[in-house]
Amino acid sequence: MLAKWQEQLENMYDQMVAWRRHLHQHPELSFQEVVTPKMIASILESYGIEVRRNVGGRGVVGKIAGGRPGKTIALRADFDALPIQDEKDVPYKSTVPGVMHACGHDGHTATLLAVAKVLSEHREQLAGNVVLLHQHAEEVAPGGAIAMIEDGCLDGVDVVFGSHLNSKTPLGTYEYNSGAFAAAADIFEIKVQGRGGHGASPHETVDAVVVGAQIVNHLQTIVSRHVNPMKPAVVTIGSFHAGNAENVIADTAVLKGIVRTFDPDVRDDIEQEFKHIVESVCASFRASCEIEYTKGYPALVNHEEEANVFANVIRNTVHDGILEVASPTMGSEDFAYFLHHKPGMFFNTGAGNADGAHYPHHHPKFDFDEKAMIYAGKAMLSLVHHYTIA
Amino acid sequence: MLAKWQEQLENMYDQMVAWRRHLHQHPELSFQEVVTPKMIASILESYGIEVRRNVGGRGVVGKIAGGRPGKTIALRADFDALPIQDEKDVPYKSTVPGVMHACGHDGHTATLLAVAKVLSEHREQLAGNVVLLHQHAEEVAPGGAIAMIEDGCLDGVDVVFGSHLNSKTPLGTYEYNSGAFAAAADIFEIKVQGRGGHGASPHETVDAVVVGAQIVNHLQTIVSRHVNPMKPAVVTIGSFHAGNAENVIADTAVLKGIVRTFDPDVRDDIEQEFKHIVESVCASFRASCEIEYTKGYPALVNHEEEANVFANVIRNTVHDGILEVASPTMGSEDFAYFLHHKPGMFFNTGAGNADGAHYPHHHPKFDFDEKAMIYAGKAMLSLVHHYTIA
Amino acid sequence: MLAKWQEQLENMYDQMVAWRRHLHQHPELSFQEVVTPKMIASILESYGIEVRRNVGGRGVVGKIAGGRPGKTIALRADFDALPIQDEKDVPYKSTVPGVMHACGHDGHTATLLAVAKVLSEHREQLAGNVVLLHQHAEEVAPGGAIAMIEDGCLDGVDVVFGSHLNSKTPLGTYEYNSGAFAAAADIFEIKVQGRGGHGASPHETVDAVVVGAQIVNHLQTIVSRHVNPMKPAVVTIGSFHAGNAENVIADTAVLKGIVRTFDPDVRDDIEQEFKHIVESVCASFRASCEIEYTKGYPALVNHEEEANVFANVIRNTVHDGILEVASPTMGSEDFAYFLHHKPGMFFNTGAGNADGAHYPHHHPKFDFDEKAMIYAGKAMLSLVHHYTIA
Amino acid sequence: MLAKWQEQLENMYDQMVAWRRHLHQHPELSFQEVVTPKMIASILESYGIEVRRNVGGRGVVGKIAGGRPGKTIALRADFDALPIQDEKDVPYKSTVPGVMHACGHDGHTATLLAVAKVLSEHREQLAGNVVLLHQHAEEVAPGGAIAMIEDGCLDGVDVVFGSHLNSKTPLGTYEYNSGAFAAAADIFEIKVQGRGGHGASPHETVDAVVVGAQIVNHLQTIVSRHVNPMKPAVVTIGSFHAGNAENVIADTAVLKGIVRTFDPDVRDDIEQEFKHIVESVCASFRASCEIEYTKGYPALVNHEEEANVFANVIRNTVHDGILEVASPTMGSEDFAYFLHHKPGMFFNTGAGNADGAHYPHHHPKFDFDEKAMIYAGKAMLSLVHHYTIA
Repeated sequence: MLAKWQEQLENMYDQMVAWRRHLHQHPELSFQEVVTPKMIASILESYGIEVRRNVGGRGVVGKIAGGRPGKTIALRADFDALPIQDEKDVPYKSTVPGVMHACGHDGHTATLLAVAKVLSEHREQLAGNVVLLHQHAEEVAPGGAIAMIEDGCLDGVDVVFGSHLNSKTPLGTYEYNSGAFAAAADIFEIKVQGRGGHGASPHETVDAVVVGAQIVNHLQTIVSRHVNPMKPAVVTIGSFHAGNAENVIADTAVLKGIVRTFDPDVRDDIEQEFKHIVESVCASFRASCEIEYTKGYPALVNHEEEANVFANVIRNTVHDGILEVASPTMGSEDFAYFLHHKPGMFFNTGAGNADGAHYPHHHPKFDFDEKAMIYAGKAMLSLVHHYTIA
Repeated sequence: MLAKWQEQLENMYDQMVAWRRHLHQHPELSFQEVVTPKMIASILESYGIEVRRNVGGRGVVGKIAGGRPGKTIALRADFDALPIQDEKDVPYKSTVPGVMHACGHDGHTATLLAVAKVLSEHREQLAGNVVLLHQHAEEVAPGGAIAMIEDGCLDGVDVVFGSHLNSKTPLGTYEYNSGAFAAAADIFEIKVQGRGGHGASPHETVDAVVVGAQIVNHLQTIVSRHVNPMKPAVVTIGSFHAGNAENVIADTAVLKGIVRTFDPDVRDDIEQEFKHIVESVCASFRASCEIEYTKGYPALVNHEEEANVFANVIRNTVHDGILEVASPTMGSEDFAYFLHHKPGMFFNTGAGNADGAHYPHHHPKFDFDEKAMIYAGKAMLSLVHHYTIA
Repeated sequence: MLAKWQEQLENMYDQMVAWRRHLHQHPELSFQEVVTPKMIASILESYGIEVRRNVGGRGVVGKIAGGRPGKTIALRADFDALPIQDEKDVPYKSTVPGVMHACGHDGHTATLLAVAKVLSEHREQLAGNVVLLHQHAEEVAPGGAIAMIEDGCLDGVDVVFGSHLNSKTPLGTYEYNSGAFAAAADIFEIKVQGRGGHGASPHETVDAVVVGAQIVNHLQTIVSRHVNPMKPAVVTIGSFHAGNAENVIADTAVLKGIVRTFDPDVRDDIEQEFKHIVESVCASFRASCEIEYTKGYPALVNHEEEANVFANVIRNTVHDGILEVASPTMGSEDFAYFLHHKPGMFFNTGAGNADGAHYPHHHPKFDFDEKAMIYAGKAMLSLVHHYTIA
Repeated sequence: MLAKWQEQLENMYDQMVAWRRHLHQHPELSFQEVVTPKMIASILESYGIEVRRNVGGRGVVGKIAGGRPGKTIALRADFDALPIQDEKDVPYKSTVPGVMHACGHDGHTATLLAVAKVLSEHREQLAGNVVLLHQHAEEVAPGGAIAMIEDGCLDGVDVVFGSHLNSKTPLGTYEYNSGAFAAAADIFEIKVQGRGGHGASPHETVDAVVVGAQIVNHLQTIVSRHVNPMKPAVVTIGSFHAGNAENVIADTAVLKGIVRTFDPDVRDDIEQEFKHIVESVCASFRASCEIEYTKGYPALVNHEEEANVFANVIRNTVHDGILEVASPTMGSEDFAYFLHHKPGMFFNTGAGNADGAHYPHHHPKFDFDEKAMIYAGKAMLSLVHHYTIA
């Protein structure tokens, strides 16, 4: 039966490309998606799929109820674009200045629509149900996932899967792992308040440049001394701005940066230690400070059992697919929230080639090999087959 | 005789105020003075004083040749203004938007013109000569003094004096000292060239923020460890700018600042050590750097003998004047160059009062008590009297 | 057949205990082992096992040639003790003052002797051979393994296994993994040469305390910025000694510490970067330095295939054993060298209990549950069975 | 009359040498002086001078009452020795192992005894009195001066003078100044309490080496940023000791050092800031600390009027003496306390020559040109003459 599904998916390739290119030409920014969810909902409904709109804001949830009782498997595709000017020279180039599908979410969406179409035609045979999670706003914290979950999108779901196209991995390769897959991503902004004055009178001032430099220095010890060396962590100060004139001691310094971790305890511990260090260093110079510490997406941690299911399914049913174990990356992904609530996993689908699909994600010339949509779709069909048929 | 001179000066008070206010309304920026030197030259010539124009560019040098042979004493007044918007509410407010006599050079000029007038009337009695150094461009390095000297303004001069009005010192007080009076003022700009990258991948980068912070840190040791603790020195990093985004490791950092010293050996030593430290720290992180290190005015060091002359002259001849020993200040003044070539000294003339003349120099509301011009002028007359009559 | 072997091993429990306690009472320090290897060789020979003595110095290698051709599996047990005073109150307490089997190598030896006895009785059935690696000097770099390998102990060996008793893990549990299991352990000593002088005259000195402090500071950035955050690494400065008097600036500072890593590239990179940083910081202060950087044991990295073999063997044949995946530890072990030459793996055998076997390794009261020898021995028998019978 | 006094002093040269060499052979440590004060008291009494013993512990105060009323001038000589082994090869070498007059206090004492003898013979002519302050324990804080003052040694005194022989200055030269002459000398000891642990597990520890290094670092900013650059100050960490083993993270670090200043406000401010920084840095790492901060002698600040008196007196009455203005030194001297209570000043008397009197003070081979006692004595006689005769 799966072979039949796969064949139907392959036959939808031109449709997937058409959908994807349409989306590519009409990208919408995170939390500003209007036309995209309408299009998705219309297509799903045209296949007789029950649709709920405006889930958690702008999400679209479809449900394919199987003919027999069984497990409910959710599949997720995100559909937001990025504030990047499309610099590709292709017919399907973005028509919106400064906005672009530079991360492949258009492909995710087209893939899931095709998968939905195939499954909708076989719904009577399914022992269980398939939930289609078309998510808005993956690119910008707090992301769409958390709001969709609060709005019930996972109710009744037993297991959840998602895929990301990856231009850095060749077409035909799946990357997966068990455990941490993407990092928790937090951001901070420190404003050091010293006391300015003439550059030749340091004793009448609190020199915000010196305070800021000591903060940078001291923060290095979080990773070098405070965190378990077996637990990956990054503390980066991305920007440091203080002072306007060479002969005036700066009264403020603004430092911005990020913290990336995998382990939630390490994440919380770093937040606490970070604030403690910054406040202590400022106090040591009799400066004051304001700290904004914003927690972004948590670490995406694949569940072991579902990771094994995925690996076996790919090995056994996608005969031209190559399976590779991925190292965790320091990137972040709000699919993490789905895995806080339900068993499941997230994998990459290789989408790179030498003909233009080799720029990194978020690059103005980003593109992907559209045949990757077939691979991603086949993996999803195989997973549905595993949970509802096999 | 001096009493007579003093009386004549006092009688010129209204004229001094008029000159000063005219200049105040028509300020000209450093190295852009056109009308001011013309006015000065015309006035001097109107008193039968021999004038040389365009000395060292825009300076004006007058010479009052005495009736008998003797010493030649030079008196200096600078005449440039500052790029500051006048915010005072007075009838003589600057008429040039964004340009203002915010440091009292208008008063210096008016004073020296009045002194010249008085002396011109007694030239036959003088055993020696008086040189009037009307200097352009004191506020901006390299300053006008050095060019005027190169253009011969000190030729034949035996001793040189100058005064600065000081709104922070009450009217009637003279501040002087022997030895260092104002600091050498150097400036620097460091550009650290690291290698940028994603904030979560520090190992692929050279983090310019961290390099810059270590530079700030390490530069503290110049003053704390490297310089003789008996020799005052300041190294200030006034600005630190690196990075634009919290999640991108900065590839460059730009640090600007100043170095202030009194001792020329310390000054040279710091320059050498500064460059060595910055280059070493950058190298330690495998970053590169560009350093611009610009020497400004040298330290103004009053000569002991002339300082004693000044003190005695004030004590004995300006009966309502108060004499105070000044601590050196970290400010800078290109009168320093005159003292590299000739014996002499520089003093402050108190010009503060509670009626508006209490803002610091370079403040948009800066003003001074115009009676201070009488004190400054009397001191100059007394000095001339000492060298050419007494 | 394996069941029979296991039963024979269990019957040897009293003998294992006797051997272990005899060794415990007569411990010998690393590279000073004389009686221990003699005893081992005698016992092996008494079972008709071919023995080579003084392998790589003080090692003993036994060989049980099977009755049929097949794979050669090597089993390793180390036999050196530690310079620690035994503080246990037991009849088998060490009789050598200041020397003690505080790491369980006595148990390793007794176990392998018993395994050898069992296998020697079944040699005709083996399709392949068993090599018994009784290794001296595991506790002290450069260790005995490397010399034994150079002396041919692995010649003809196809696969090599070893076990360590672990008092921190409960009896009955095996800890294993695939990949990094123990860290590479390098040590360093830095001697900073500044220039001493009176505490009140820093400008005449190069302050070794300040240089040393900056080195400590800067070395933090190796882990925080230079190493891939996914690759565990530790740089610790364990000691810092400089100066004798409060009012004298120290001319030297001596810093000692360790570096721990898993990845050989990271290890080499840190060594290079470490030296570069220390030399650069010293140069930045015009100090000089000497660096001794000594590479100790490399990381112990278990081979994936043999790790899987081990896991399957334990699951299938040691029915009361519990199998746990171990995280790598920052400890070090020269079994690492065997795995540089041959496929194989290293595992821990739980040996803790609440009755005295709960002190950490290297503690003066360290002891282990002697029944752990049965578990360790069974695992070895199962491995031999896997490679030569199954 | 002064010429007569000077001649008498010169005639006592052999006696001064004899006294000095006797004291040199029988040195006594600070606060342990027994024989020395007895000898001093006996000699003074033998000249009919009124003596008070055990002043402030071990001091001796003599009083020469003049024949007429007038000012009371006090002259001070300290008499303690140092815990240094005499390594000179001279007949008058110290006979006490490990104790030596290595700072010239023996010469101070002999000089004042001779001055006393001369003045005692002219007491009837004096309009005023002379107080002879033979002080114990100058070398060790809290010093003898403060206790002698509390015990009334300055009661009735109008002005106080003292001299120090100086082997670094040639015979015949007097060094003096107005204002700060010697520094305030404070000492500190910091004990950082971290939490030790295995070198490979920094996350389980508080690394005292890293904390100590940050303290060293941060303390640099006291001088570089916190203190007025016109006010000399030194903060030196003379010793840093932490940790015993390379692979164990140190739980404590002990840092010792000194603070030298001239201005009492700067001194107090540094103490406060020092403690604040050390405590803040420790807190920032969650370490604790103990700080011992001991104030030693205050700055010795010569009074302007008495400095001028001294200069005039030397210029006018010691015809072969050379007068030089001294820069303040970072050394310390408890004569400072006398100047807290009475007008006065302290000067150096050159005592160096090329024949052995060229080692620095506190050196095992220290010696001085004994003719310097004549110069020191003449200066004292001149001062007495100024205040009581002239």
